[in-house]
Amino acid sequence: MKKLETWVTVPDTSDFSIYNLPFGIFSVKEGAPKAGIAIGEQIVDLAALADLGLLEVSGVYFRQSTLNDFIGLGKEITNKVRLDVQQLLILENSPLKNHPKVFVPQQDAKMHLPVHIGDYTDFYSSIEHATNVGKMFRDANNALLPNWKHLPVGYHGRASSIVVSGTDVRRPMGQILPKDQIEPVFQASGRLDFELEMGFIVGKRKRLGERISTKNAAEHIFGMVLFNDWSARDIQKWEYVPLGPFLGKSFASSMSPWVVTMEALEPFRVSGPEQDPKVLPYLEFEGEYNFDIQLQVGIQPKGTTEKVVSTSNFKFMYWNMLQQLAHHTVNGCNVNVGDVMASGTISGKDASSYGSMLEISWGGKKSVQMNDGSERRFLEDHDTVIMRGHAEKEGIRIGFGEVKGTILPST
Amino acid sequence: MKKLETWVTVPDTSDFSIYNLPFGIFSVKEGAPKAGIAIGEQIVDLAALADLGLLEVSGVYFRQSTLNDFIGLGKEITNKVRLDVQQLLILENSPLKNHPKVFVPQQDAKMHLPVHIGDYTDFYSSIEHATNVGKMFRDANNALLPNWKHLPVGYHGRASSIVVSGTDVRRPMGQILPKDQIEPVFQASGRLDFELEMGFIVGKRKRLGERISTKNAAEHIFGMVLFNDWSARDIQKWEYVPLGPFLGKSFASSMSPWVVTMEALEPFRVSGPEQDPKVLPYLEFEGEYNFDIQLQVGIQPKGTTEKVVSTSNFKFMYWNMLQQLAHHTVNGCNVNVGDVMASGTISGKDASSYGSMLEISWGGKKSVQMNDGSERRFLEDHDTVIMRGHAEKEGIRIGFGEVKGTILPST
Repeated sequence: MKKLETWVTVPDTSDFSIYNLPFGIFSVKEGAPKAGIAIGEQIVDLAALADLGLLEVSGVYFRQSTLNDFIGLGKEITNKVRLDVQQLLILENSPLKNHPKVFVPQQDAKMHLPVHIGDYTDFYSSIEHATNVGKMFRDANNALLPNWKHLPVGYHGRASSIVVSGTDVRRPMGQILPKDQIEPVFQASGRLDFELEMGFIVGKRKRLGERISTKNAAEHIFGMVLFNDWSARDIQKWEYVPLGPFLGKSFASSMSPWVVTMEALEPFRVSGPEQDPKVLPYLEFEGEYNFDIQLQVGIQPKGTTEKVVSTSNFKFMYWNMLQQLAHHTVNGCNVNVGDVMASGTISGKDASSYGSMLEISWGGKKSVQMNDGSERRFLEDHDTVIMRGHAEKEGIRIGFGEVKGTILPST
Repeated sequence: MKKLETWVTVPDTSDFSIYNLPFGIFSVKEGAPKAGIAIGEQIVDLAALADLGLLEVSGVYFRQSTLNDFIGLGKEITNKVRLDVQQLLILENSPLKNHPKVFVPQQDAKMHLPVHIGDYTDFYSSIEHATNVGKMFRDANNALLPNWKHLPVGYHGRASSIVVSGTDVRRPMGQILPKDQIEPVFQASGRLDFELEMGFIVGKRKRLGERISTKNAAEHIFGMVLFNDWSARDIQKWEYVPLGPFLGKSFASSMSPWVVTMEALEPFRVSGPEQDPKVLPYLEFEGEYNFDIQLQVGIQPKGTTEKVVSTSNFKFMYWNMLQQLAHHTVNGCNVNVGDVMASGTISGKDASSYGSMLEISWGGKKSVQMNDGSERRFLEDHDTVIMRGHAEKEGIRIGFGEVKGTILPST
C-alpha cells in the first residue's frame, strides 16, 4: 500500500488513521447533529469544510441528522469527498491549517446513529455459531439444519430499537418457561447476552420486484459498523417457535457510530471458507469478499477493569455480504439507503473466539472469571460490554472504534 | 346509535358513510400527494379545507405524503378534525356547499400508502389459523405449540415491501426443496398465497425501555386497515427454520389506503373468545376489544368474474390488539407513529372462513373452482385477489374499501 502521512497528530494505535476516514454524525453541546469524518482523536466537520468551499458537495448534505441523503448521492461522490478530505489532511500547505475550527475533538462530541435505518435484517452466517447453537439446542450430530449450507439464513429485525454505542440497555422483562415446567412466568431475563456482529449499511436503493446479483452487490454496500445484537436467551427460547426471534432481541441492538467505507476496507479482502456443497448459481460470486477484521469483546463489571472474553475475526464468515444481499433480494425484496444488514454472531473454531456468552458458557454450564474475581455465565446488571474491531496490514491500521453499552437493572 | 345525515350523496352500500370518515393520502394527476377523508364516492381535500380556515389544524399537516405528522398531533386533535368534517358534511347551511373544489371524486384520485411505516410486525393471533397450520405441518393432535396460548406469537416483518392496494405483485423466485429431495432448486414459487389480515397503525410514540399496559394500549392505536400478507409457501417452508419467515413474505404485502379510526369502529366492539389457560397479568385486559368486522376474499382470474373464496370475521381473533401491543412492548421495545401491526391470518371455525389458500386447499389437496371453470389450489399468474371488510349494525355501515393486487409472472 502507498504510504500516506497526515499533518494531524494520529496515535499509532488509533483506529482512525489517514487510511480510514469513516463517516459519522456528531453534535457538540446544544448544537444540531451534523456529519463528520474521524481522524485520530479529532472530527473533521464536513459542514464547515463545505462552507469553506473545499468540497464539491453542498453543506446541506452535512447539516442533517443522518447520512442517508449524503450516502444516496452515490459512491462516486461520497468517495470523492473522502479522498478530498484525505488530500486536505496530507497536503503540507493545506488550507485547513488556517481553519482550526474545522476540527472538533472527539471527546467534546456526542455521537449519534449515523443513518436512519428503514429496515434491519440479521443474518446467521457464521458456521461455527450456527453449529454451536444447533449442538446445544437440537442435536449434536446434526447441528446444522438442512437449509443452512444452501442459503444465508436471516430474519427481519426491529429497526426502531437500534441505538448508538454508549446508550444504556435496560434488562428486559418477559415470559420465560422455568426448567421442567409447562407454565411460563413473567420476570426479568436471567440469560442476558451479547452477540458479536458486524453490520453493513446499504448505500444504493434497489426497487421492489428487481434483484441484486452477487456481481453488482458491492455497489450497494456503503460501509460497515460493529454491531451488538443483545439477546435475552430465556425469552427467545420460549417465544421463538415457529416464527423466529422477537422480544428476545427487540429491547435493544447497539451500533458503533463511525461507518468505515468499503473503499477503506478494500486492502483487507481475503477469501472465505470453502462452500461445500456448491451453492446455487445466484449465490456464486467472483473474487474475494471476506474481510480480515480482528474483533474483540470485553466485559467490564462496575468498579473493576475490562476482561476480554472473546477474540474473533470477521473473515470466519461462511456467507459473505455479496451473497447475503443477492439472497435478500432474489425474491424481489427492495432495499433502501440506510438499511442495515448484520452478520449474525461471529464465532471462530476455538472457544476463545466464540461471539456470545451462550457459546462461551456453553449454555450456562461454564463460567468466566472477571478481573474482580466474580463469575459470569451471562451478563449481570451494571456490566458494560465493549466490542472493538480493526484491520491491520503492512503497518497500516484502520478500525471501527467501539460499540459499548451498560446493562441497567430491569424496572 | 344517533342517526346522522349528510347532504353528500352516499350510496347505501358505501363503506364510506358519514359514520366512518377514514383518513388517506391521495393525489390527482401530476399533483403532490396530500391528506383526505373519504365520504361516499368523494374525497374531502383536507388541505383545501384547512386553507378555507375551516379546521383548527394548519394545512401544512395535510400537504404531506404521509399522515404520520398529523397522526402524531394526538387523538384529541385528529378526532376533532374528523368530527369537524362530519359536522361540515351534515350542516344544512354548510360553508362547504359553496366550495365544490374541496371534493375530489375517488375515481379521479390515485391512492398512496397512508403512512410511512417505520417498523412492521405481523402477529399470528387466530387460533383457527394457527391450529390449521399446525395440523398440516406438524402434529394433528398437538397442533398448537406450547407457547401459543400464553403469548401473542409474532415476528418482525419487512416494512419496505409494504405496498398500497392496487400495486401489482411479482411472483417471487427463490429456493424451494422439491418433495422427497435433499437439494433445493431455484425457481418461481408454485405455492403463492394470500393471507387475509387486518393491521392497526400506531398513533402514539412510546420510548425504548418503557412498556404499554393493556389499560393504556388503546391510546396508542390510531386506526385500522385491511392487510394482505402475501406468502410464498414453498419458499417459506424451506427457509423458515430456525429464524422464521423471511423471503417467503418480503416480496410484497398489500395494505388498503383508507385508515378507519378506532373512534369510527367503537360501536362494533364485541367480546373475544375465552382465553384458557388464564393469561399472565400483563396480558389481562378490561372491557371488550374485539371488533365485529365482516371480511371477504375474492379471486378474479384474468378475463372472468370474481369468486368469493373466504368469508371471515375479525371478531374471531384469540389475541386482541391491546394484548398484542402490551406484549410487543413488555420487553421495552419502542414503537413509533406509523408502525403497522398486523393480525396474522384471520380464519374462522368453518372451512368457508379460512383466510389463506393453504388452509382452503388444505395444503394443496383440495381445489376451488373459479367462475370460468378453472381450479385453484394456490394463486395463478394474472389472478387478482380482492379483500373487503365492513362492520354493520342497526342499519349503520362503515367499511374499509378493499385491498387488491394482481399477480404478475416471475421474471
